[in-house]
Amino acid sequence: MQRQTRQIDEGKPRENGGIRVVPKPANAQVIPPILLDLDGTLVDSVYEHVMSWREALEEAEIRLPHWKIHRRIGMSGKLFLPTLLRELGQKINKSEIESIERIRLSLFMKKIPEIRVQPGAKEFLQYLVKIGARWAVATSGDRKQVEQLLKDLEIPPEVPVITGDDVSIAKPAPDSFVAAAQRLGVSAVESIVIGDSPWDLLAAQRMKALGVGLLCGGYAESELERAGAYRVYEDPGDLLAHIEELGIQTE
Amino acid sequence: MQRQTRQIDEGKPRENGGIRVVPKPANAQVIPPILLDLDGTLVDSVYEHVMSWREALEEAEIRLPHWKIHRRIGMSGKLFLPTLLRELGQKINKSEIESIERIRLSLFMKKIPEIRVQPGAKEFLQYLVKIGARWAVATSGDRKQVEQLLKDLEIPPEVPVITGDDVSIAKPAPDSFVAAAQRLGVSAVESIVIGDSPWDLLAAQRMKALGVGLLCGGYAESELERAGAYRVYEDPGDLLAHIEELGIQTE
Repeated sequence: MQRQTRQIDEGKPRENGGIRVVPKPANAQVIPPILLDLDGTLVDSVYEHVMSWREALEEAEIRLPHWKIHRRIGMSGKLFLPTLLRELGQKINKSEIESIERIRLSLFMKKIPEIRVQPGAKEFLQYLVKIGARWAVATSGDRKQVEQLLKDLEIPPEVPVITGDDVSIAKPAPDSFVAAAQRLGVSAVESIVIGDSPWDLLAAQRMKALGVGLLCGGYAESELERAGAYRVYEDPGDLLAHIEELGIQTE
Repeated sequence: MQRQTRQIDEGKPRENGGIRVVPKPANAQVIPPILLDLDGTLVDSVYEHVMSWREALEEAEIRLPHWKIHRRIGMSGKLFLPTLLRELGQKINKSEIESIERIRLSLFMKKIPEIRVQPGAKEFLQYLVKIGARWAVATSGDRKQVEQLLKDLEIPPEVPVITGDDVSIAKPAPDSFVAAAQRLGVSAVESIVIGDSPWDLLAAQRMKALGVGLLCGGYAESELERAGAYRVYEDPGDLLAHIEELGIQTE
């Protein structure tokens, strides 16, 4: 190919020997915004959620096997309870759901001291800070339990955390991730949504963001891929070890 | 097609109008032997196993996330612990494994009163009795915990129950299922193995039996299919509702 002569036009990127030379933007502009789920993604809390729901439901004399609850964690309880009870041919009213939810929350709060951060979660968040990424956490949990779960993650106070209390429509609707993008002042569509459940990935699809799945909530790779995950990693540590696969280049 | 004249030859099945007439065998001969896993398959105990392992490992200052333990339940602990620790770059000796296993067993025994039978499990076993099927239970659990778990299932005393104490090589090796077939005096190859984990289905493949998967242990359909499940049902109740799909016809 013939070498082009240098041309500098006002308002266009400089071209130098056929290579487009664009002014290097600040890191924050080249790194896509990162929107993170919390339960199962950053903290290993899914199994404690399953146990708490199962116990709370038993107190209300509703018997559901663990696996059916597990596969709805990440959805709001207000949404998944009517679905599961419909399968059993049972109906449930709003005040019963609220009462089960109250019992569940108190059972879950007692288990929080046992909950650990996911492998590599802290390192991944420290990396996001280091590279100057714009990132936020979006969960369907209520603020009380979320505050407890966030403790060990050492999230800087300026990072937005959207809880179930901040949006009227919970996951798998994309509202909480969209609210997180708005709080950051970034485009939801250009964001990367990282979550451990198909509900996060459904939300990502509905908001036209890129979805990335993590196995550490207990779903299978195929379930996350089928729900739209571009890539599936074991946990935040494994994701960090493959960060270039998301098109994030910082060095 | 022209109608054949009736021919009766000694030693051959009678033919009648082109239709082979064979003497109708007893039900026990036409129904394939059924070899059943216990944990996750007949009782909803997988999540309690996961929690017990995680707690026991933490006491030994080994931190493993729930999902990695979950995906090894159904394998013997002696097999899965070295595998998981190899991933962490740690080694473990036989006496440490035995000490963790002792703690785990005592934690698990305390959780047994919370464990329920899987939906439809009793009805499925009653059905097997009713149709005169030859069936057995084969698990990698030790006899002490197995006896507790079997209590609510009302298994007739003549039904063989093979535990981890009865075989020297645990699942996913096929030995426990093969021992169950031997105890029944049936062909392992002609049996149907029913389990909730890929380890059961690997065992079924290695013994050349037909494998059927159940979702009620928390694995995904695709994981069970990939491990060789001919069909996957939600739980024993769902299997019973589709029993003809296994070629079991009793009426």
